[in-house]
Amino acid sequence: MTRALAEHLFAALAQATGDGTGITRDSYGTGESRALDIIAAAARSHGLDTHRDAAANLVVTLPGTDPALPFLACGSHLDSVPQGGNYDGAAGVIAGLLALVRMRADGIVPRRTLRLYGLRGEESAAFGRAYIGSSALFGRLSPDDLALPHTATGRPLRDAMREAGAAIDRIEAGEMLLDPASVLAWLELHIEQGPVLIARNLPVAAVTGIRGNLRHRSVTCIGEAGHSGAVPRWLRHDAVFAVAELLTRVDGHWQTLLAQGHDLVVTAGILGTDPAEHAIARIPGTVRFAFEIRSQSQDTMTAFHALFEAECRHLEDSRGVRFVLDRRLDTAPAVMDPDWVARIRQAIVATGLTDEPMASGAGHDAAVFANAGVPSAMVFVRNQNGSHNPQEGMEMDDFLAGAEVLRTVLTDGAA
Amino acid sequence: MTRALAEHLFAALAQATGDGTGITRDSYGTGESRALDIIAAAARSHGLDTHRDAAANLVVTLPGTDPALPFLACGSHLDSVPQGGNYDGAAGVIAGLLALVRMRADGIVPRRTLRLYGLRGEESAAFGRAYIGSSALFGRLSPDDLALPHTATGRPLRDAMREAGAAIDRIEAGEMLLDPASVLAWLELHIEQGPVLIARNLPVAAVTGIRGNLRHRSVTCIGEAGHSGAVPRWLRHDAVFAVAELLTRVDGHWQTLLAQGHDLVVTAGILGTDPAEHAIARIPGTVRFAFEIRSQSQDTMTAFHALFEAECRHLEDSRGVRFVLDRRLDTAPAVMDPDWVARIRQAIVATGLTDEPMASGAGHDAAVFANAGVPSAMVFVRNQNGSHNPQEGMEMDDFLAGAEVLRTVLTDGAA
Repeated sequence: MTRALAEHLFAALAQATGDGTGITRDSYGTGESRALDIIAAAARSHGLDTHRDAAANLVVTLPGTDPALPFLACGSHLDSVPQGGNYDGAAGVIAGLLALVRMRADGIVPRRTLRLYGLRGEESAAFGRAYIGSSALFGRLSPDDLALPHTATGRPLRDAMREAGAAIDRIEAGEMLLDPASVLAWLELHIEQGPVLIARNLPVAAVTGIRGNLRHRSVTCIGEAGHSGAVPRWLRHDAVFAVAELLTRVDGHWQTLLAQGHDLVVTAGILGTDPAEHAIARIPGTVRFAFEIRSQSQDTMTAFHALFEAECRHLEDSRGVRFVLDRRLDTAPAVMDPDWVARIRQAIVATGLTDEPMASGAGHDAAVFANAGVPSAMVFVRNQNGSHNPQEGMEMDDFLAGAEVLRTVLTDGAA
Repeated sequence: MTRALAEHLFAALAQATGDGTGITRDSYGTGESRALDIIAAAARSHGLDTHRDAAANLVVTLPGTDPALPFLACGSHLDSVPQGGNYDGAAGVIAGLLALVRMRADGIVPRRTLRLYGLRGEESAAFGRAYIGSSALFGRLSPDDLALPHTATGRPLRDAMREAGAAIDRIEAGEMLLDPASVLAWLELHIEQGPVLIARNLPVAAVTGIRGNLRHRSVTCIGEAGHSGAVPRWLRHDAVFAVAELLTRVDGHWQTLLAQGHDLVVTAGILGTDPAEHAIARIPGTVRFAFEIRSQSQDTMTAFHALFEAECRHLEDSRGVRFVLDRRLDTAPAVMDPDWVARIRQAIVATGLTDEPMASGAGHDAAVFANAGVPSAMVFVRNQNGSHNPQEGMEMDDFLAGAEVLRTVLTDGAA
């Protein structure tokens, strides 16, 4: 029954929100609303109550015997990027629905109320702002956020939210629509969006934390341009060789920190000489690059950034170049709740699977709940071909294994 | 007299060919012709014969007592890049003229005839082809070369040469206009165009050879793009870190070869991630860069290229990336004649200066003479602010020291 329901729901979503190439469920837009309707209808057909909260998110409720207790929440988001995949977000909502449907079918009446959220607006593709639906719940959308224009239509987020049924005046006032103290915990299943579970041959994993990041959009290395034939090495201030050595030294530190057990990824995603002045026969005088550090630990990021700056100084001395760093941009990591992470890990073991917890590199609504003070934890499901593209894949067996882990934790947690 | 004549001639050239910003003596064009006229007039006013050869270069002659002997040639070019400097090329012509004028004034009648060349079309700025005037002398201009359009006007080189008085039919037929066996040696004084003599605090130097080069216009490193947060280091195939390590390893080999006494410069003048797909939060999947090796020794270039390829293979293994090298382009080094280099070095010492010979990184007409079989050698004069720009500088004392070295070698060589 569970597998059939899951397959039916994924197929229904794909049919309703397919765009010919992939899946498009525009944040606070038509495709997203259709997805909420499909999940809500399925919930009601299985005897569950549904309503839309003040941020227009879908809420499915399985009432507990003691409604005064904080409720246990699960779910994920139902929007997608344009031409995205069918599983990013929706997998977590369907997994939660399967759990509630199964408990209801099994006649389990929990002590605590269980609530499944089908959140809106998690992707930043439409308005340039991520986690809209969850942020709205905790009064975290600013008037500037609400004025953000839709990338395609130019209409402000405010209008899209109002049209979807959100209480825009309360949201704009920064009202706390959901009291964090009323939520026992937030449990979110999500596809991994990365290659780790494939490489480790594991269907699911508990998530230990959501990496924050520390970025410089632009670091400039200023050396000295010159004739590539006429300047010997000892008189050169070559920006390319300086940046190459910098990154190689940084890579060495990265490997050391990994060997010491720290969580860390480092990326220079954009790099280049200056097209206005570079040439084959010209010693490059300037190189610009983007630099990003991610870790579950703020301490690790801070320490690695200090190492990066120290290496810049070192190369300034050794190569006679200068590094100019633009403003550092920080996004704090989200700490997952150790108790709920432990419950997920136990459920993984109980399901007969190997427990190898991992960090989440991408951001999730779980980070919003965690940073609002709600104890949060996540289950990752192995998926193929990354995400945010039509080739995004997920095996149904892997999904069902993850859904079973979620169901176990929800059942025990609400009992 | 010598200093006054030099200052007068440089001033006359600057006045006649100034463009408001710098100096423009268009190859086989108006400014260049004016420069030839100024030098020719000065030569005649000092009792020297002048004529234009079949490539329309200026030739100033001081006849020897034994005209059957191969003559001794000196000079350089009189064209410039647009908005260039006054000394690049012209210094060598004026230095030669000073020597001939002085010998004539001193009543020295050499055994061998001395000829000063004011060559045309050395710069590639106008037609994309360098060394036009000297190449024409040795039948080295192809019909394709002669069809090259002027960068600004689109008129073919052929028309410009014909208009300047060149025997275009003979040139197009590849005729040898100057028999290399009739030339005892080619001696060229030129500004350094680099920072070595400034850094070494030397006014002049003998040139040991003209570096050839070995180039790849484009080397592509193909890794694997991915989410910068979601892919741990052990699953990455980051093209930027791969290229950074490659260049750092190459730099290590470069330092080793320098320490062993090899002549070598290495440049990656153009480098960048792909703007069509790069992003701060994306592991870079592709990096392209230009790669250039220069040396006076073909063996050194060949060996270093093999090292470069070996390091590419090494990184393919260690990082799971792939390097694609486009066609290798070779320009052979020009060997300076050891006997004439030795004469220049002796003259430098005789003039009371320090003798520290050096390689030429830039190309020169001397390479054309050398590769045509004429024993060739060069004197470099210290200059400020590089070349090919209006800020190009040269101290008159340095120039006069170089001119004196040239005069000594010419006087002794023609005796």
